[in-house]
Amino acid sequence: MNDVSSEHAIKSVADNWKRVRNANVVSVHLAFTDSSFGDRSLIFVTDYHPAAETLAQRHFSPASRFSNRYSSAIVPEPVLWGYIVQIASALKAIHSAGLAARVLDASKILLTGENRVRLNACAILDVVQADVHPSLADNQRTDLYLFGRLILALGSNNTSQHSQGKAMEAFGRTYTPRLKEVTTWLLDHISPQRSDSIDDFLTLIASDIVTTLDNSLHQADALESDLARELENSRILRLLTKMNFINERPEYEHDRQWAEHGNRYCIKLFRDYVFHAVDAQRNPLLDMGHVVGCLNKLDAGIEEKIMLTTRDEETVIYVSYKELKACIEATWQDLMRRAAT
Amino acid sequence: MNDVSSEHAIKSVADNWKRVRNANVVSVHLAFTDSSFGDRSLIFVTDYHPAAETLAQRHFSPASRFSNRYSSAIVPEPVLWGYIVQIASALKAIHSAGLAARVLDASKILLTGENRVRLNACAILDVVQADVHPSLADNQRTDLYLFGRLILALGSNNTSQHSQGKAMEAFGRTYTPRLKEVTTWLLDHISPQRSDSIDDFLTLIASDIVTTLDNSLHQADALESDLARELENSRILRLLTKMNFINERPEYEHDRQWAEHGNRYCIKLFRDYVFHAVDAQRNPLLDMGHVVGCLNKLDAGIEEKIMLTTRDEETVIYVSYKELKACIEATWQDLMRRAAT
Repeated sequence: MNDVSSEHAIKSVADNWKRVRNANVVSVHLAFTDSSFGDRSLIFVTDYHPAAETLAQRHFSPASRFSNRYSSAIVPEPVLWGYIVQIASALKAIHSAGLAARVLDASKILLTGENRVRLNACAILDVVQADVHPSLADNQRTDLYLFGRLILALGSNNTSQHSQGKAMEAFGRTYTPRLKEVTTWLLDHISPQRSDSIDDFLTLIASDIVTTLDNSLHQADALESDLARELENSRILRLLTKMNFINERPEYEHDRQWAEHGNRYCIKLFRDYVFHAVDAQRNPLLDMGHVVGCLNKLDAGIEEKIMLTTRDEETVIYVSYKELKACIEATWQDLMRRAAT
Repeated sequence: MNDVSSEHAIKSVADNWKRVRNANVVSVHLAFTDSSFGDRSLIFVTDYHPAAETLAQRHFSPASRFSNRYSSAIVPEPVLWGYIVQIASALKAIHSAGLAARVLDASKILLTGENRVRLNACAILDVVQADVHPSLADNQRTDLYLFGRLILALGSNNTSQHSQGKAMEAFGRTYTPRLKEVTTWLLDHISPQRSDSIDDFLTLIASDIVTTLDNSLHQADALESDLARELENSRILRLLTKMNFINERPEYEHDRQWAEHGNRYCIKLFRDYVFHAVDAQRNPLLDMGHVVGCLNKLDAGIEEKIMLTTRDEETVIYVSYKELKACIEATWQDLMRRAAT
C-alpha cells in the first residue's frame, strides 16, 4: 500500500469507530501516522480516563513469573456479572456499527471507579491487520468466543489458553451454574458453525442487564445528591469572593460611605460578625457551620436581623440580612461600574 | 379485623415493601395508622423526591374537560422505551420480592430529571384491599396488562379504557412495529390463560434495556465530571474561609508579627494581590479566573514566586506560593490552638 492510500484507510477506520459512542467503549476521535518519533508511528487519539487501571492490573497480579496462575483473590460473582453486562453492551454497540472488537483482552480493558469497564484499543487491529480479511460475521463470532475466554480467565484466575477444561472446572466450583452456562455459551462460539449474534446473548442475560441498570441508576442518584450538596459550595464561594473583592479595598479607605456610620460600614462589620467572632474568654470561634449558615441567610436575603458591633464596642448596628444583601449588591454594582470604565 | 391485627397487617405490608429497593420504585419506610387528623388515617412514610411531577401531569394536560383526549405533543419513541425499560426493571424487583405493583397509573408514577420514572403508591392497595385476595400470580399477570395499558395511554394520548382498538390503531401509526408488538404482548395479559413472567418480558426487550443502561452510564459520567469540577469549589471555599478567619482579626491589630516587615504581613498583602488588584488606570480588576488561579496555586503550594506590594508602595516582598502556604498554615494552627483553649 502506498502512503496516500494507507492514510486514507487509517482515516476511514477512525471514521467508522467514531460512530461508536458507547459508555463502555473508549471513544476514538482521530487516527493518523506521524514521523516525529523517528519512525512512522501510528497515532490514535482517544478519550483519556484518568486513574484508570486495566482488568489485568486489577485481577492478574503475578504470584510468580514462572506461572500462569495468579495470587489475587477470587472475583466476586456480582462483579463478574457487571463486567459481562457492560462488555455485552459495548459489543452490541460495536456490532451494530458494522464493526468487530477483535481485541478483548484483560490487559486492554480499562477499569475506572465502581467496576466500570471500557473496551480500548479495538480500532488498532482494523488498521494494522487491514490486510487480513476474515468476514465481519466471522470477526463478530470470534468476539463472542474471546468474550467467553476473558470471563473464564477472570473467573478461574488463569490466563493460560491451553487448559480450558481445567479452568472451566475451577470456574464451575466457584460460580453459579447460570454463570457457567452463560460462559460456556460464549466459548462455544469458537466453532464457525455457530451463528448467534450479540442480540441472542443479550436475550440470554436480560435479567442481569436490569440489575446492572438498577446499580447504575442508584449510582447516578448518589452522584446527583452529592452534586446538589457541592453546588451549594459554589454558590457560597461566589458570594464570599464578592465580599473579599469589596472589603478592605485601599480605594475605600478614605471613602465616607465606609467610615463609621457610613451606610457601607455594615459590610465590614458583617465580615467581623461572620469570621472574627470570639467567645466570652475572647478565644476565636472557628465554626464553619456559623460561616455557611450566615452566608446562606445572606444569599437568601431573609428578614432575620442581627446585631453588628463596631470594634470599639461603642456602637451597635441592628440590621437584617435583607438590608445587608442590598448593601453588598449596591457596592458590588458600584465596583463593577468602576471596573468597566 | 380488629385494630391490633390490622396494625399488625399494615406493618407486615410495609415490611414486605421495605425489601424492594429499586431505583425505579419509591422506597417505602414505614406504614401506620394515626388519629391526629380526626379520623383513622393510614400513613405511609416513603422517600421524598423533590420537584417530581407525575407522568399524567407531564403527558396528559387536558385540552377540554369533556374529552378523554389531550392536547399535548406525542411522546417520542425513545422516551417511551425509556419508560418501558424502567417500569420493567421496577416490576422485576417487585415480582422478585413476591409482590405485585397493582397500581400502574400515569397519575401515580413520578417523573424526575431526565425521564427518570419511579412507581409510587404500590403498597397502599396491599393494605386497603387486603381483604380482596386474587392469587399473587394473578396480580402479577394483571401488572403486565396494566403496564401495557399505561404505555398505550401514553402513546395514543388517550386514557379512555373503552376504545382500546382505536387507541391501538393511532399507536401503530405513530410508533415502530416493534413497540406496537411489545405493547400488544403486554395487553394480551388481560387473559388469565397467559402465564408469562416479567422475566419473559425482559428477554423480549433485552436490547432496549442495554440502550437505557448506556444512557444511564453516560448520565453518570456527566454527573461525575460535573461533580469533579464542583469539588474544586469546595476546596477553594475552605481555603478562602481560612484566609477570612485569619485576615483583619482585631486581635492581630497590634501584633508585631502582622506589622510591616512582620512575617505574617504577607498574608494580608496576598489578599490584596488576589482581590484588590487594579489596572494601570487604577480601575478595579474583578477577575474570578485570577482569584481561582491564585488560590489553586496557593493550595498546591508551588514554587512560583509573586511580588506583593505594600499599600504605601514603598516595599515589595518577593515570596513563593509555597512560603505563603506555610505562613497561612502556621497562622491557622496558631488560631486553632487559641480557639481550643
